Amino acid sequence: MMGERRAAVVVGVGASSGLGAALARRFAQEGLQVFIAGLTKEKLAAVEKEIRSAGGHAEAIVTDATVEKEVIDLFYKVASAGFPLEIVAYNVGANVPAPLLETSTELFQTLWQQNCLGGFLVGREAIKHMVPQKQGTLLFTGATASLRARPPFTAFASAKASLRALAQSMAREFGPQGIHVIHVVIDGAIEGEQAKTRFPELVQQKGEAGLVKPEAIADTYWALHCQHPSAWTHEIDLRPFKEPF
Amino acid sequence: MMGERRAAVVVGVGASSGLGAALARRFAQEGLQVFIAGLTKEKLAAVEKEIRSAGGHAEAIVTDATVEKEVIDLFYKVASAGFPLEIVAYNVGANVPAPLLETSTELFQTLWQQNCLGGFLVGREAIKHMVPQKQGTLLFTGATASLRARPPFTAFASAKASLRALAQSMAREFGPQGIHVIHVVIDGAIEGEQAKTRFPELVQQKGEAGLVKPEAIADTYWALHCQHPSAWTHEIDLRPFKEPF
Amino acid sequence: MMGERRAAVVVGVGASSGLGAALARRFAQEGLQVFIAGLTKEKLAAVEKEIRSAGGHAEAIVTDATVEKEVIDLFYKVASAGFPLEIVAYNVGANVPAPLLETSTELFQTLWQQNCLGGFLVGREAIKHMVPQKQGTLLFTGATASLRARPPFTAFASAKASLRALAQSMAREFGPQGIHVIHVVIDGAIEGEQAKTRFPELVQQKGEAGLVKPEAIADTYWALHCQHPSAWTHEIDLRPFKEPF
Amino acid sequence: MMGERRAAVVVGVGASSGLGAALARRFAQEGLQVFIAGLTKEKLAAVEKEIRSAGGHAEAIVTDATVEKEVIDLFYKVASAGFPLEIVAYNVGANVPAPLLETSTELFQTLWQQNCLGGFLVGREAIKHMVPQKQGTLLFTGATASLRARPPFTAFASAKASLRALAQSMAREFGPQGIHVIHVVIDGAIEGEQAKTRFPELVQQKGEAGLVKPEAIADTYWALHCQHPSAWTHEIDLRPFKEPF
Repeated sequence: MMGERRAAVVVGVGASSGLGAALARRFAQEGLQVFIAGLTKEKLAAVEKEIRSAGGHAEAIVTDATVEKEVIDLFYKVASAGFPLEIVAYNVGANVPAPLLETSTELFQTLWQQNCLGGFLVGREAIKHMVPQKQGTLLFTGATASLRARPPFTAFASAKASLRALAQSMAREFGPQGIHVIHVVIDGAIEGEQAKTRFPELVQQKGEAGLVKPEAIADTYWALHCQHPSAWTHEIDLRPFKEPF
Repeated sequence: MMGERRAAVVVGVGASSGLGAALARRFAQEGLQVFIAGLTKEKLAAVEKEIRSAGGHAEAIVTDATVEKEVIDLFYKVASAGFPLEIVAYNVGANVPAPLLETSTELFQTLWQQNCLGGFLVGREAIKHMVPQKQGTLLFTGATASLRARPPFTAFASAKASLRALAQSMAREFGPQGIHVIHVVIDGAIEGEQAKTRFPELVQQKGEAGLVKPEAIADTYWALHCQHPSAWTHEIDLRPFKEPF
Repeated sequence: MMGERRAAVVVGVGASSGLGAALARRFAQEGLQVFIAGLTKEKLAAVEKEIRSAGGHAEAIVTDATVEKEVIDLFYKVASAGFPLEIVAYNVGANVPAPLLETSTELFQTLWQQNCLGGFLVGREAIKHMVPQKQGTLLFTGATASLRARPPFTAFASAKASLRALAQSMAREFGPQGIHVIHVVIDGAIEGEQAKTRFPELVQQKGEAGLVKPEAIADTYWALHCQHPSAWTHEIDLRPFKEPF
Repeated sequence: MMGERRAAVVVGVGASSGLGAALARRFAQEGLQVFIAGLTKEKLAAVEKEIRSAGGHAEAIVTDATVEKEVIDLFYKVASAGFPLEIVAYNVGANVPAPLLETSTELFQTLWQQNCLGGFLVGREAIKHMVPQKQGTLLFTGATASLRARPPFTAFASAKASLRALAQSMAREFGPQGIHVIHVVIDGAIEGEQAKTRFPELVQQKGEAGLVKPEAIADTYWALHCQHPSAWTHEIDLRPFKEPF
């Protein structure tokens, strides 16, 4: 009934200008049925509409990735729709800078839940569906902080390092079963409304060439998905050519 | 009233043969007033008694390091006792191996709480007391998995990587304020009852020389504490000379 | 006269079944004028012939990459031919395993010259031509040993780590000038005659799926070259899906 | 005839205010017979005299550590003197900053020879003497650049990364034979005449507390040497508490 179409799931879709939306658009352009998951119904609806207007296939599913039941439901809906699961991207990157002594226990826990626990839930449920197929790509969006922890990003860095280790261990466990797990370190600020709102000075200072373009990141996600199993990548870094590192 | 005696706090003290107890004994031998915190009253009492019998000063405080209130209370008691806080060691290393698809959400969360959240709470509360003194040493016990994540240690590795990043960021934020934060990567199985009970074959296979001795680790913790501020270490690895790495 | 054709230089081309030849073929397929450099005239001639038979443009230049004058000459010839320099790949990976006490000073030096000094010479001369264009891609082939040094690969690992640091520093210095420097860690044995001859047991043990296919690596080299400057990679790993890591 | 005295060899001894001299003084204070090797007779003589005046045992041996024959001779002299070889420190850290396009082939090679090849020669010859004893400590002085390569320290970083990999592979090969190989990453400028002469502004800017004191480093070298084989360190970092990292 579904023909040959296969499914992509992008978890962490917000504004149309963000990375989640760019990944969804790209996967739709490649002919995949894209399921977009995020917290805000209106934002998801806008991205869904945009993809459909361009002739793609998208379906929005409001999901809190930190809640086990919601993640299980998300993959149940995808499976029920009948499309084999080809790509899953976990793209939640909640960041709230704070000096350590001003970091509440709640903030520390919440950032870990959003950045890492959600990745665990999405990864585990996705892999449950991929193992029988002996196939599938699982992408995790990392950040500079995944590799280097600095104040005032202590809670964020701790959570991102946690996600990175999770992805590494998943890659080792499931690579031999045909599942390609990739951790992408985005080393720089991503262009988009979030950057403009939250770091306006940074955006102005870096200029056009100093921000990572979501579409450029999406190109690399897709290239990684297309890698032949004889030469798979587990980790890659991405940054604007002008970014000092 | 207290004279010159200063305080050490060891969080994660269990059996007398374990690392927590060895650290407590060593700090007591160096003349510190040692506060030993752990989950099991009987085990703490045994270590307390042992230290006192040897002429040292120890006080057991049952504490669940993953509960904010209990950690705040712990440091309140230490401060109330009137000893300036010299060393705090966070030595909780809860490990439960499991394949990813058999890792429950609860297990994943619990291991993170024990290995990392507790380290955050203990570190934050310790630092609150150390900042006004412009002095103090904060040691975190890491593991092989802090640096490399492999199944079936996915949850453990994710949690330990999270703790490592936390320690790194703390070191960067508070080093310039005189607080020495150190992450110790113990790359191997620690000799003691826990190893004999949990990995009997490993212990037999490695033999005497293949296990890390708690007293040897304690020597290095103490040497790190004694470093001149002109040449501080943030990270160090420890393993038996026979351990392949 | 030359029209729009641009140049690729592959240094370290040997047997037709090797990675150097695969890179040359791929760049030729993309329409580049490929200059292939290596030590053995006959091997180069075979690859040159193969590319030309397939309708590509190739020219063999016998070059010892560890000799400054020869490297300068190589790039002089490329520049004289009138094709702007688009891609340079340094693909020399000389490996001679030996226990440390059996490693002669000459072997230690030679492996460094082949793996790293040649990369310095090729990189420096390539960049001299790329800087005025404000454009160019420079790829270095690394290995598992670039990141982890183990006996009996001490000399090889030392040389490969040296090359990796060189590539990293080049990336930092010339990225902002529009030159994309990439270090590719190939974590596994590459399929081809060299593997069959040198590690026949390894090849048999790993089987078809356990070796990295040169064509699959070449796909990723090309994808990296095509990255938008807004999201450049500096380092990437590649390994067969079955490879434990 | 020699009684119980054991030997230490420090390679890379220059000015009395430098790290090499501080290591030699410290080892002499611990009762070792110290052989100090370096390029400049006058500097060695001054350190030798200073140690002897303080009641220690020192002998200067002018040695170019990049020349195989001289290194073999050095260890031959030590062995002939009849003292069992206890510690060897390779402390040569030649650094000449230069942009890549101004880095001559000779400079690139020379820095590698001084920073890495000398370490190979000293390490290999030391280990030849240590293996029959099944005992010995081998320390290599690293730098910030050992881990991160940045312009204008390209040649230096490439050489230091090479040394680090060498030390890592030696540690893996000879640890199980009782030889303790340690790589010490000194992350900051070392206090002394060299710093004052070469980076006067840096010294002024950092102030007293921003430089690493040679004596403080020597303390840690000694503590590492004293580690019980049950808990050996392979790599450690050292930096002033005020150093951002």
